[in-house]
Amino acid sequence: MENTHNFILPPKNLIGSGAIKDLPNELLSWKLSKVLIVTDKNMISLGYVENVEKILKSLFISYDIFDGILHPNPTVSFVEDGLTYLNKGLNVFKRNYNLIISIGGGTNHDCAKAIATVATNGGSIIDYEGYNKITKLGIPQIAINTTAGSGAELTMYSIIVDESRKVKMVISSPFLTPFISVNDPIFMTTMPKEVTASSGIDVVSHAIEAYVSTEASPITDSLALEALKLVFEYLPRSYDNGNDLEAREKMMFANIMAGMAFNNAGLGYVHCMAHQLGGFYEQSHGDYNAVLLPYVFEFNSVSIPEQRILKLCEALGTITHNTSQAVGLIIDSVDKLRSKLEIPSKLSAMGLKESDIETLSQNALKDICFFTNPRQGLLEDIISLYKAAF
Amino acid sequence: MENTHNFILPPKNLIGSGAIKDLPNELLSWKLSKVLIVTDKNMISLGYVENVEKILKSLFISYDIFDGILHPNPTVSFVEDGLTYLNKGLNVFKRNYNLIISIGGGTNHDCAKAIATVATNGGSIIDYEGYNKITKLGIPQIAINTTAGSGAELTMYSIIVDESRKVKMVISSPFLTPFISVNDPIFMTTMPKEVTASSGIDVVSHAIEAYVSTEASPITDSLALEALKLVFEYLPRSYDNGNDLEAREKMMFANIMAGMAFNNAGLGYVHCMAHQLGGFYEQSHGDYNAVLLPYVFEFNSVSIPEQRILKLCEALGTITHNTSQAVGLIIDSVDKLRSKLEIPSKLSAMGLKESDIETLSQNALKDICFFTNPRQGLLEDIISLYKAAF
Ligand SMILES: [Fe+2]
Ligand SMILES: [Fe+2]
Repeated sequence: MENTHNFILPPKNLIGSGAIKDLPNELLSWKLSKVLIVTDKNMISLGYVENVEKILKSLFISYDIFDGILHPNPTVSFVEDGLTYLNKGLNVFKRNYNLIISIGGGTNHDCAKAIATVATNGGSIIDYEGYNKITKLGIPQIAINTTAGSGAELTMYSIIVDESRKVKMVISSPFLTPFISVNDPIFMTTMPKEVTASSGIDVVSHAIEAYVSTEASPITDSLALEALKLVFEYLPRSYDNGNDLEAREKMMFANIMAGMAFNNAGLGYVHCMAHQLGGFYEQSHGDYNAVLLPYVFEFNSVSIPEQRILKLCEALGTITHNTSQAVGLIIDSVDKLRSKLEIPSKLSAMGLKESDIETLSQNALKDICFFTNPRQGLLEDIISLYKAAF
Repeated sequence: MENTHNFILPPKNLIGSGAIKDLPNELLSWKLSKVLIVTDKNMISLGYVENVEKILKSLFISYDIFDGILHPNPTVSFVEDGLTYLNKGLNVFKRNYNLIISIGGGTNHDCAKAIATVATNGGSIIDYEGYNKITKLGIPQIAINTTAGSGAELTMYSIIVDESRKVKMVISSPFLTPFISVNDPIFMTTMPKEVTASSGIDVVSHAIEAYVSTEASPITDSLALEALKLVFEYLPRSYDNGNDLEAREKMMFANIMAGMAFNNAGLGYVHCMAHQLGGFYEQSHGDYNAVLLPYVFEFNSVSIPEQRILKLCEALGTITHNTSQAVGLIIDSVDKLRSKLEIPSKLSAMGLKESDIETLSQNALKDICFFTNPRQGLLEDIISLYKAAF
């Protein structure tokens, strides 16, 4: 029986307090002349961009800053603005950018991946929606992460909202993998409370969806379960006190491990459905996941091997041999965490209109995360799940 | 407090039964003209090299085969023979090799890494002994693994015996990381019983040394502990019946996970000391580790946090709150596994001469694995450990 798994990751990942100090060394060996920083204005006012500018200046590397990412959802417009900026830079200096450095959370990394890809592959980012549509390496990217997190700094996914269709496109290709990821908690202490909550519970959904995915392997399992243990212990702490450096560091690890897991195992209906909500409304991605996860997990539970449900329950802190009790405990744990993080319990509180459910469900069926969900559902199932979470 | 970790891995790893079938796709995008296969005669007679030749032929990629790796320990001579072969190829065809494919176990991958490095960096492989001495990318390498295993198909280490000094050099650099690793159990079923044993218990020593290393992180911890669970369950089965495909597959995963763990957490005195034995005598690397591991673990145990000892013990199957009992149980488990695999219990049965211990210990102090051991010892400690295991 064939049973293959790719394990894809940036070849180098700098991790931990002070990890940013290793960046100059990495850049030195590249013989860079011109860098494009992709970020947002908030990262500039927090001083994070200046940290990176200092490094580039010390190495006499010229750079430009595109700070046109304006809100928490990555859009085709931002990508196109970035490409316009990049092409303008080309005209003035007659030199290509040979590196893109993205600074921020998932939105900034995803936009930067898209800019890097279209810059070398041509066309529009919309052309690359789906799995493995990209044929050439993009401009190499270093992703400096400030949240914990989307995992985008190390994944081969770029999630971009096509405003014209109100669809959150999933673009997936090994070519989207950044060359270096940087996770240094120094860039994470100022994360606002609601970002800590939303990106933190996103980690839970990555770990659980990767664990129950049809593409899970022992490698992704071990990373996913350990990530979950860390989130349930340390997310409430970093939510209560953003300066709790131990909690921030553990959440950083949880994000990395869940990112490694879902990058290689894939995701499921939670993301499938959350992506569509992100295409229509403006709430943070993680908040949608938080609400959807219990409903989807219950729906999936009949298709997850019992031993695996028990192991998942154990990772969340309870040893039991009763599968249906375990399903209940898992759902309760997620729900309690959501409520602790002051995320609403229903999608109606996050913009969902009942009249949109049919369209959202149609779109969800086309999302590539659909295929690795452990239970294969029909349109009606997706509709019911949206309604249950409404 | 600064506390940084790199996480380094080949950007792509093909894993599982049938994974080799994904190789043509990977090669297609590279625009290759000429490949050097680095292997040994046994891999040719098993038909493994032919499998790869067929792929290259189907893509009209020309190749040459260097099959001059003649015994289980990688040596400077093999590397130099490989370089002579490579340079001869250059003269005849006036074209550089743009890819090296190593087929085999750790010895073949390590020799190939060394050939790939010297081909572009010049000099002799001896010049690069130690940490981070290599300054340029080598010829890109794809490592097709046939054991479970040394982890060499995915690590940034190359271990080469310098026969003139009788030293097993550790060469470590991110530049040594293969570009793609392939772990397909199809290449593993014919592994002889003693290779299954020796390479399998090597995985145990990788996982335990990575877990207790001073550079361990939550990422390497989760991979190391899960690898251990797999080895203790499936190594006896794949030893008893080499055709037990489930056991082979689980051991493949254990090798990958322990490899990922030690590549990033480092190793300790077991490897430090086993490397020296490998420089002097001819026994397989894993066998030396098997004998040394209990003695080194006991020596280290006073420096390993109690909670971590208990967690390690739990991974091996026993929950206890008594640390010294846990140390005993861990040592017993390793010892029982060694004995089950019919590996001798003492180094004297593997060539060690008492008169060599002083020199071996001196050399061990210079091995880079020395620095990540949890307890920092002196020359006398290393001597005592060799004597205890004698
Ligand atoms: Fe997500
Ligand atoms: Fe080893």
